[in-house]
Amino acid sequence: MILFNNDYSEGAHESILALMQETNMAQTVGYGEDEYCERARKLIMKAAENENAYVQFLVGGTQANLIACAAMMRPWQGVISCDTGHVTAHEGGAIEATGHKVLIVPGVDGKLTAERVEAYYESYLRDPAREHLVQPKMVYISQSTEIGTVYSLAEIKALREVCDKYGLYLYLDGARLSYAIAASDVTIKDLAELCDMFYIGGTKCGALFGEAMVIMNDELKDDFRTLIKQRGAMLAKGRLLGIQFLGLFTDDLYFRIAKQAVDQAMRIRKAFNEKGVEMLIDSPTNQQFPILSDEQVKALSDDFMFQLWEYLPDGRKSYRFCTSWATDIQGVDKLVEAIAKL
Amino acid sequence: MILFNNDYSEGAHESILALMQETNMAQTVGYGEDEYCERARKLIMKAAENENAYVQFLVGGTQANLIACAAMMRPWQGVISCDTGHVTAHEGGAIEATGHKVLIVPGVDGKLTAERVEAYYESYLRDPAREHLVQPKMVYISQSTEIGTVYSLAEIKALREVCDKYGLYLYLDGARLSYAIAASDVTIKDLAELCDMFYIGGTKCGALFGEAMVIMNDELKDDFRTLIKQRGAMLAKGRLLGIQFLGLFTDDLYFRIAKQAVDQAMRIRKAFNEKGVEMLIDSPTNQQFPILSDEQVKALSDDFMFQLWEYLPDGRKSYRFCTSWATDIQGVDKLVEAIAKL
Amino acid sequence: MILFNNDYSEGAHESILALMQETNMAQTVGYGEDEYCERARKLIMKAAENENAYVQFLVGGTQANLIACAAMMRPWQGVISCDTGHVTAHEGGAIEATGHKVLIVPGVDGKLTAERVEAYYESYLRDPAREHLVQPKMVYISQSTEIGTVYSLAEIKALREVCDKYGLYLYLDGARLSYAIAASDVTIKDLAELCDMFYIGGTKCGALFGEAMVIMNDELKDDFRTLIKQRGAMLAKGRLLGIQFLGLFTDDLYFRIAKQAVDQAMRIRKAFNEKGVEMLIDSPTNQQFPILSDEQVKALSDDFMFQLWEYLPDGRKSYRFCTSWATDIQGVDKLVEAIAKL
Amino acid sequence: MILFNNDYSEGAHESILALMQETNMAQTVGYGEDEYCERARKLIMKAAENENAYVQFLVGGTQANLIACAAMMRPWQGVISCDTGHVTAHEGGAIEATGHKVLIVPGVDGKLTAERVEAYYESYLRDPAREHLVQPKMVYISQSTEIGTVYSLAEIKALREVCDKYGLYLYLDGARLSYAIAASDVTIKDLAELCDMFYIGGTKCGALFGEAMVIMNDELKDDFRTLIKQRGAMLAKGRLLGIQFLGLFTDDLYFRIAKQAVDQAMRIRKAFNEKGVEMLIDSPTNQQFPILSDEQVKALSDDFMFQLWEYLPDGRKSYRFCTSWATDIQGVDKLVEAIAKL
Repeated sequence: MILFNNDYSEGAHESILALMQETNMAQTVGYGEDEYCERARKLIMKAAENENAYVQFLVGGTQANLIACAAMMRPWQGVISCDTGHVTAHEGGAIEATGHKVLIVPGVDGKLTAERVEAYYESYLRDPAREHLVQPKMVYISQSTEIGTVYSLAEIKALREVCDKYGLYLYLDGARLSYAIAASDVTIKDLAELCDMFYIGGTKCGALFGEAMVIMNDELKDDFRTLIKQRGAMLAKGRLLGIQFLGLFTDDLYFRIAKQAVDQAMRIRKAFNEKGVEMLIDSPTNQQFPILSDEQVKALSDDFMFQLWEYLPDGRKSYRFCTSWATDIQGVDKLVEAIAKL
Repeated sequence: MILFNNDYSEGAHESILALMQETNMAQTVGYGEDEYCERARKLIMKAAENENAYVQFLVGGTQANLIACAAMMRPWQGVISCDTGHVTAHEGGAIEATGHKVLIVPGVDGKLTAERVEAYYESYLRDPAREHLVQPKMVYISQSTEIGTVYSLAEIKALREVCDKYGLYLYLDGARLSYAIAASDVTIKDLAELCDMFYIGGTKCGALFGEAMVIMNDELKDDFRTLIKQRGAMLAKGRLLGIQFLGLFTDDLYFRIAKQAVDQAMRIRKAFNEKGVEMLIDSPTNQQFPILSDEQVKALSDDFMFQLWEYLPDGRKSYRFCTSWATDIQGVDKLVEAIAKL
Repeated sequence: MILFNNDYSEGAHESILALMQETNMAQTVGYGEDEYCERARKLIMKAAENENAYVQFLVGGTQANLIACAAMMRPWQGVISCDTGHVTAHEGGAIEATGHKVLIVPGVDGKLTAERVEAYYESYLRDPAREHLVQPKMVYISQSTEIGTVYSLAEIKALREVCDKYGLYLYLDGARLSYAIAASDVTIKDLAELCDMFYIGGTKCGALFGEAMVIMNDELKDDFRTLIKQRGAMLAKGRLLGIQFLGLFTDDLYFRIAKQAVDQAMRIRKAFNEKGVEMLIDSPTNQQFPILSDEQVKALSDDFMFQLWEYLPDGRKSYRFCTSWATDIQGVDKLVEAIAKL
Repeated sequence: MILFNNDYSEGAHESILALMQETNMAQTVGYGEDEYCERARKLIMKAAENENAYVQFLVGGTQANLIACAAMMRPWQGVISCDTGHVTAHEGGAIEATGHKVLIVPGVDGKLTAERVEAYYESYLRDPAREHLVQPKMVYISQSTEIGTVYSLAEIKALREVCDKYGLYLYLDGARLSYAIAASDVTIKDLAELCDMFYIGGTKCGALFGEAMVIMNDELKDDFRTLIKQRGAMLAKGRLLGIQFLGLFTDDLYFRIAKQAVDQAMRIRKAFNEKGVEMLIDSPTNQQFPILSDEQVKALSDDFMFQLWEYLPDGRKSYRFCTSWATDIQGVDKLVEAIAKL
């Protein structure tokens, strides 16, 4: 059985494990103030080409998102997300448990558009009962999105303009940022220029776990570590998070392994395309969502694990196939062969 | 200028004010444990024909709704509402500030249907990532609805069946319950049989303020008063709330004044209909929502106040005209005349 | 039976009821934007001798306190209160339900002292684990206090200096402000100069209900009404709150009736003193706390209602006797007589 | 420089790292439903000698505590802790951010006593304003405590009896459980019998990170995984947590390494004792708290790192010295020597 159901089926890239092994008995202070964290922060600032980047390491993505919301909003404010956004779809109500409403703007290919955000805010402004509405304060986007699509640089710039116009924060969830970088024209440097806060995903991009929150807006930096502690997100052995990102940002590992994963995903996409299998969405990244018949599912299930993704309105079902840094090329060979035989 | 913009433009029905005057210097204990509250509770239990009804008085509707949510749900649970539900539309994120997500099921004429709630819960059950979803626990309906429509007894019974099937609580927001009673086949006795909790609205139905929360489900009664206190909803001079409902439930005042308000609303509806003015929705209660041209609005604005309600997708706008216990028949005469002249 | 157990046993001062009667059928807009509220605001600004005072009316004290906390603090911040403060003692966890810790500094006669607040903040600053501590951000005091004592102007000025030194907000709970004004050298004008936010109590000072929140610090004014709405504290018929304060601040009613209540309380205090009854505390305001034997309690209980206040460490018990605007002088005569006979 | 400042200065025990290395490329499902987690759960159930133990793995201690509070309490309920309890002292207000008050009962040697908890609850019961108080629902204890002391089996049994008497949950924070087991008569089996919920600490006891939450009370098990997800505590690569505990509970590693750490701590204690250095508390576990003069601190600071713990009321200061599974015996030799030379 070969697993394609997600991009977190294995441990970490071997170079990270090696680094953990090597540094295991070194004694450091706790809570992310050790030298490994410091070195990782410097590497991230270098990748961002930005001295102003304030980096704190968190353990996981839902945690990162709820903490970003707590940092950015006052109690009566809400976060704009598209309907497929992770914050509204798959976090068990984490944002609401933090006290905030997720304000839904229908997405296009899993993405918010500047036009729709602007229209939403304008309708808020002109609502005669505005004082009784949740005040939009923050725009949440994910790169790559939950369904594998990516924002172009122009699209993010347009969102930034809308945010500037209305005094909104722009926050980017980079759980799968490496794959998006491999498939789009947006760099970490761009994000550092355009976002108030964003995170660079580790868990799904080669690390054991860990997300690097990058805060660009100065007014969001104060007390951020106390907030992390309060939400149970401050790792005692914080060094471990530093080590993950030290590994990922050494010799461009972060970018190289994502590139390879996307290449393999493209092979899978091509195989489905050649077989005439319809895709839920045209995804250029490591997640692919074919719409399969029960028979096709049966044929593939003996040798491959993949995930039931969505029941479509017309009764059909889409499934998720993921590649990752750990995807075995021979495994993809077999999958491609099996798809051809469908 | 005659105000039709809402149903809370005046003070209280004169008999309530008289009762307040009369009892003003009587000394009572505080926090709703006085004799007036006790007598009002008994009258409500009588109206409900139900000895099991546990009644506590609250000050306002948003307060009532957020407290009901806090009483009924655990942190990972959410409340199902239709898209026009007050809890999601006009309470400034009160439910989210209480920690819970409002789960939207598209409404039909401002109402949830049993079928759609069932379909929603079934899709929750079959979702492979169910553990990462907010668990639906409570169904929120309002009677009359935010756009003036009413649930029939059969519709509420059908919702109750779905709730029973899936272990959901049924909660009814009765901010405008009196008007709904005047326009539907649903009685307070029915609600006492079918709902786990509901409130009988006072503020918009003849009282100065106040909502009577009626708890039928025994597991929701314990500690409810501490919850009220915690949310800042326990009135020190709780007697005032008792007095409101004592007045409303004496000699059927609650029902009589609503009947008259609905009668006047029907005159307004008829006037718009005769003029060929399209209505946003066919409302049998005290709120009417004509779709008016800017010219029509201009023509009516000199003498009448009414509320811009909604920007329609096609660019037109709907407006709200309300009647209430306090509506002056001569005022309606003038409005009807003015509509005829449009 | 004459009730001395609290200061909210009756309705409202007759002039307020008259005002309500008189304005009952006037039509106004809702939510506190009507002319009565506007006039009341102006009267309060005049009493504060301060054009910068931003006034919003709330229904009750717990509500006022939790909303002040939500307005003043970020999620990782806490409010300093003395151990007898209402926010920690008798609000059912309202502040914690709003997400904030109440940081206890032991009081002196029910009051915080500038020295102790300073010492507390200094110990926070020098704590090596400061990042893991709740950050103090707000100082909560009540005037008069929960045990009837009052802050002098010098004491509040000293607290203000400490707040300025450490960037803390100063918030004053004025549930019983009128009685404190009658018994101290602190005026509303002083509070407007010294506090970031404070409220002028209505419920316990002659109104049916209602508290006037006065915001002096500009950074706390934005969006305050949305916060009120969110917490269920925005009265639909907001005019009622305006009318209460219109009544209270006309012809110095607020100050006159409190003066009379304090005079009567002093008679009760004197009676206990002359009888050699020890008091829990030396209170110059309308609340008196004699320490009574069970026999004494028995002797007084037939004709008077008063409240068991506190079990003392030595096994004795203190009781609360309150006067108010509504206290009947003949009733006090009888009580004084009964005390003399103990 | 040798670090004694805490017990999380190094990575993980080598056998755990080896296990991580060995299993790194194995493909598993996510979120803690993999075979390693299953095997670790079985080992913990075996250690508890209890089939009813429901085990879920969390990342850290503050997270574990806040989730336990969210699982055990309704909004108006609070958790009893002694004044030195981690939940009130060093979690940045995590419990309050979850909506609950920490109810302080003064500790004896860092521990709650059954008598004091009973007295507290009795005073709650007899308070005439009980409805306005936070309802105590949960008792929080830590083993070993924040200052190194341990509860005896008799003490925990006595607490259990009080909890049973008043309907309270008993929750035990086992961040340093292994060291307590080495120094007390309480076993994991005992905790499984006596607690409603407790966690077995990994982070400070040999693992990279991770805490094993053990739920014994059936009513607390439902939906616990959704709660974990909501609080951002569900690790995508959940296997990593399973692997930590698989390592710790194989061949009694958990108990062996703690025993050795405590032995070394006793050497340090003895050295201080022999030198006449007063200890803050008599701790039988891996944390020792000598009260040192500035001169003594200076003498030890060149070669050893240790933590300023507390400013004592008399102006003196206590410091923390910790040992752990990773403590080097030669390092302790040097420290003991240095102490002797003070």
